[in-house]
Amino acid sequence: MELYLLVIYDISDDDLRNRVASFLKTMGLRRIQRSAFLGPTTPSLNREIEAGIRRLVRGYDGVNVQMFTLTKTCYNSRIVIGDFREPEDEIVLT
Amino acid sequence: MELYLLVIYDISDDDLRNRVASFLKTMGLRRIQRSAFLGPTTPSLNREIEAGIRRLVRGYDGVNVQMFTLTKTCYNSRIVIGDFREPEDEIVLT
Repeated sequence: MELYLLVIYDISDDDLRNRVASFLKTMGLRRIQRSAFLGPTTPSLNREIEAGIRRLVRGYDGVNVQMFTLTKTCYNSRIVIGDFREPEDEIVLT
Repeated sequence: MELYLLVIYDISDDDLRNRVASFLKTMGLRRIQRSAFLGPTTPSLNREIEAGIRRLVRGYDGVNVQMFTLTKTCYNSRIVIGDFREPEDEIVLT
């Protein structure tokens, strides 16, 4: 079954936020908003991403990350209003 | 079929962002992150919310709003890491 992972986050620490974004990019997700990434996944990739996020944010306050696994139906329901450009102050350097 | 609506947004104008948050609250969605709302929906409520958002953001730049309609399966896949408290600088007054 085709699956997609949506990750949205509220992270107050700038450095940690950039590291989480960079990690999600490395995992093959694409930035769709300032604090949201989306991309194809599998149950095993999901576990790897969840473990990686938990490791990164350990010991930090002001962190909320939410993961939603979307079936093709849910993925296709997506409606986008307005434009999105990678925010210049948060370019992820790899 | 039980459906849930997830709305995530990047809105640079403070006043507009508060008005969109207030509107989503009025529509019965619950804030789950600084810029994310989630709640039960129907196809007709979805249309009403989409039309309402389009009306609110008309004429503004720096706006990106995304809506995902989740089946029960997708809704139940949700994983939350960390805490969330309503941000004090963005309390929605009703």
